[in-house]
Amino acid sequence: MGFFSKDIKTLDDLFVHTLQDIYYAEKQIAKALPKMVDKATDAGLKAGFQKHLTETEGHIERLEQVFEMHGEKIKAVNCPAIDGILKEADEVAGDIADKQVLDAALIASAQAVEHYEMTRYGTLIAWAKQLGRDDCAAVLAKNLKEEQATDKKLTQMAESGVNLQAAE
Amino acid sequence: MGFFSKDIKTLDDLFVHTLQDIYYAEKQIAKALPKMVDKATDAGLKAGFQKHLTETEGHIERLEQVFEMHGEKIKAVNCPAIDGILKEADEVAGDIADKQVLDAALIASAQAVEHYEMTRYGTLIAWAKQLGRDDCAAVLAKNLKEEQATDKKLTQMAESGVNLQAAE
Repeated sequence: MGFFSKDIKTLDDLFVHTLQDIYYAEKQIAKALPKMVDKATDAGLKAGFQKHLTETEGHIERLEQVFEMHGEKIKAVNCPAIDGILKEADEVAGDIADKQVLDAALIASAQAVEHYEMTRYGTLIAWAKQLGRDDCAAVLAKNLKEEQATDKKLTQMAESGVNLQAAE
Repeated sequence: MGFFSKDIKTLDDLFVHTLQDIYYAEKQIAKALPKMVDKATDAGLKAGFQKHLTETEGHIERLEQVFEMHGEKIKAVNCPAIDGILKEADEVAGDIADKQVLDAALIASAQAVEHYEMTRYGTLIAWAKQLGRDDCAAVLAKNLKEEQATDKKLTQMAESGVNLQAAE
C-alpha cells in the first residue's frame, strides 16, 4: 500500500490507508483505460472498456465522498500492486499482432484489474461495517457491485466469441 | 507477465506465457507464506496460512503437470503483478504493533493474493478449453477450487472475529 505501516495503529488507520490505496489504484486505472479502448479491436470489448472508464470516474468521485464522510483528507498513496498489474497489462498488450489474441490478452489484463479492485472493496466494506460506518460501506458497495458486473461481462467474453476466434 | 510480448502470436503462446506467469506467482507465494504464518497471531489464521502453504506446494506440482501435458518446458517468467501485491503485503505487515490490526492487514493481503490467482486460473481454464485442452483445464480447475475455498475462509475471518476485535 506504499505507506509507512508504523503509522497504522488501529483498524481505522488501516481503513483510511486502504482507502488511499484504492483511490490511487482507481486513478491509475482511469489513466490506463483509454489505452485499452484504443488497443481493443472487438467492438463490444472497445465499448465495454469505454463504459468502464466512465464508471471508474464515478468510482473516484464516490471514494472522495467516503473520505469526506469519514472526515479524512482526500489522498492517494502509492500502490505497488496496481502498478504491477498495469505494468503486466502494458507488457502483454505491447506487440501482439494478431487482433483476436490481443483482445484475449486485454480481457485477461482487465480481469486482473477487476479482481484487485474487488478484493480491496470487499475488505474496505467489512472494515467500514466493523467501524460502525455503514454509510461508508454502502457507498463502497456501489463501486464493488459495478466492478463485479464488469468482471462478469469480461468472463462471458473470455469464454465465448472473442477468444474462441483467436484459437482457430 | 514479464515476457517479450512480440513472441506471442497465438492463443497457445498466450496460454503458455500465462502459465509461466502463474507458476512464478505460486513460487513467490510459497516463499511469502511462511512469513505470514510467523506474523499471524490468531491461531485459526496461523493454521489457515500453514494449510494454504501445503496447498500452494500442491499447486506448483499441478502446474508442472500441466506444462508436461502440454509438451512445454517447465519455466517461470517474472510477474510484476504478484511482486507488487507481495510488496504491499510486506509493507503493511511490517510494523503494525497491534496484533489484531496486524491480523486484519494479513487477511486483506492474503485475499489480494487469492484474487490474483483466481483471475489467472479463470483465464487459463477458459483458454485451455478453447485450445481443446480440457485435460489441462481440469487440472487447473483443481487449483482454482482451492484458491476460492481459501478466499471464502478469509472473507469469513475478515467479516467476523479477527477484525471485529481490532475495532474495539
